[in-house]
Amino acid sequence: MTQYHHIIESVPNFSEGRNQETVEEIVNVFRAKEGVKLLNYSCDPDHNRMVATIVGEPAALKAVIIESAGKAIERIDLNLHRGEHPRIGAVDVIPFIPIKGCTMEDAVSLSKEVGSELASIYKLPVLLYEKSASAPHRENLANVRKGEFEGLDAKFLLPEWKPDYGEPIKHPTAGATAVGARKPLIAYNVILGTDRLDIAESIAKRVRHSSGGLRCCKAMGVEMKQKGLVQVSMNLTDYSLTSVYQAFEMVKMEANRFGTPVMGSELIGLMPLEALVDVAAYYLGLENFSVNNVLEYKLN
Amino acid sequence: MTQYHHIIESVPNFSEGRNQETVEEIVNVFRAKEGVKLLNYSCDPDHNRMVATIVGEPAALKAVIIESAGKAIERIDLNLHRGEHPRIGAVDVIPFIPIKGCTMEDAVSLSKEVGSELASIYKLPVLLYEKSASAPHRENLANVRKGEFEGLDAKFLLPEWKPDYGEPIKHPTAGATAVGARKPLIAYNVILGTDRLDIAESIAKRVRHSSGGLRCCKAMGVEMKQKGLVQVSMNLTDYSLTSVYQAFEMVKMEANRFGTPVMGSELIGLMPLEALVDVAAYYLGLENFSVNNVLEYKLN
Repeated sequence: MTQYHHIIESVPNFSEGRNQETVEEIVNVFRAKEGVKLLNYSCDPDHNRMVATIVGEPAALKAVIIESAGKAIERIDLNLHRGEHPRIGAVDVIPFIPIKGCTMEDAVSLSKEVGSELASIYKLPVLLYEKSASAPHRENLANVRKGEFEGLDAKFLLPEWKPDYGEPIKHPTAGATAVGARKPLIAYNVILGTDRLDIAESIAKRVRHSSGGLRCCKAMGVEMKQKGLVQVSMNLTDYSLTSVYQAFEMVKMEANRFGTPVMGSELIGLMPLEALVDVAAYYLGLENFSVNNVLEYKLN
Repeated sequence: MTQYHHIIESVPNFSEGRNQETVEEIVNVFRAKEGVKLLNYSCDPDHNRMVATIVGEPAALKAVIIESAGKAIERIDLNLHRGEHPRIGAVDVIPFIPIKGCTMEDAVSLSKEVGSELASIYKLPVLLYEKSASAPHRENLANVRKGEFEGLDAKFLLPEWKPDYGEPIKHPTAGATAVGARKPLIAYNVILGTDRLDIAESIAKRVRHSSGGLRCCKAMGVEMKQKGLVQVSMNLTDYSLTSVYQAFEMVKMEANRFGTPVMGSELIGLMPLEALVDVAAYYLGLENFSVNNVLEYKLN
């Protein structure tokens, strides 16, 4: 990617985390394409969801995102989809993040082009969110997703939830898609040593901003059925303000209230180097430690 | 550096950590030179020492290392040097580490070329150490440095300590220099909330390999006179075996014995990304987390 002057990142979320054939068919779209690079992808069978991280120059990125959406729409039927994570569509959400030589406005433009084309090519209703939102009540993804796939038809009847692109009728199998530009976020889950979802939800409530917790933290309780555990699933929306270690320690602190052990944590997608440096600096009490003190290339 | 196929790293240690003019004159040699890149440099006034980290293709790296040694020899008089860290010369030690497209043998060859030229150009006796050592008792840098600058003349009279290059007489002001190839190491100091050097030494003894501690850890107690504190100064010689968090936690554990608080820690030079990932994975209990989950480029 070093040869490109304009780079945007996309982290599309697809509603399939169990069928490997479908996952690979989608992910293959991102492989060996000029101008884009697949950095990472991961599936969660409990969430029944796959998240890919791709960077690229805007035109090439747009092309692969649209192509991958086509594969997902062809393969995934939301009427049959069950999972622990809220979702409205086969391609549930497509965020765009400006990385290099691009402004947030560039990412907003790209999100609108993609949204418009998804609607016209696949007859998929598209809702713009975050920095691309057409009204303040549509900025928050949780609001956009409220009611999920099953509630889309009723939602689209409300004038305030008319899609930004496409007809106000859900795609029969692929539902709808949220598309938007946003700042980089860290998707971070802390795993609890209990199967009680009410405990995870109670901790999530105390940790998240909306109910009095950390400023740049969204959180919800999620079941991990395969492991018989629950997790506090978080989005850290600005890691320069709210750090990963703060989220982790605050979940531990609140878990104490229930005598619930914290088993560990997991990242979905990628952790920016700055955020990693912040974690190490906190736990080791490192003085004067920054990204400039990290040897980035891989050793033999 | 991405355009070069063969890259070696060097981390020369110079015996000046107080006079900024001297430090800048040395460091300037590494700046704006074709084929090499200065990654980092840091001074410690208590150690009275400056450590630089440079990467480059072998021929260019050799040229700047020899030039920088010239500046140090010109500027630094070991007869007047006082500091808390053991040293034998104005350019105390020059390690070479293979990074990309090079083997340890390539780094050994480079170290011998540099050693030979330092002796012939500057009449500086050179002792090869680590992977470049001419005998097993000369591998360990602590042995090479034993007796320090002040003891060099007596040391050179012993046949087993004859220099590898140059006459067995110390340079009158610049002493001698240890040059060698080695694996990457992490120079890492943990700061204790006491001014008692005996406590730092006692902890160092328990943490280091030579007296029963962690396998890839060398350690000593060092005074931080400016702060009125002491530190356990460590070299982690293979961070894939002995991790930074293990060293930190073990110092904390041993400090408990004395009721001494641990104030924090510091890295000298750079921390490889793998080591950083290891620290975050430990403290956050991260599952399936590796360097592939780190977004390495800097965001806008």
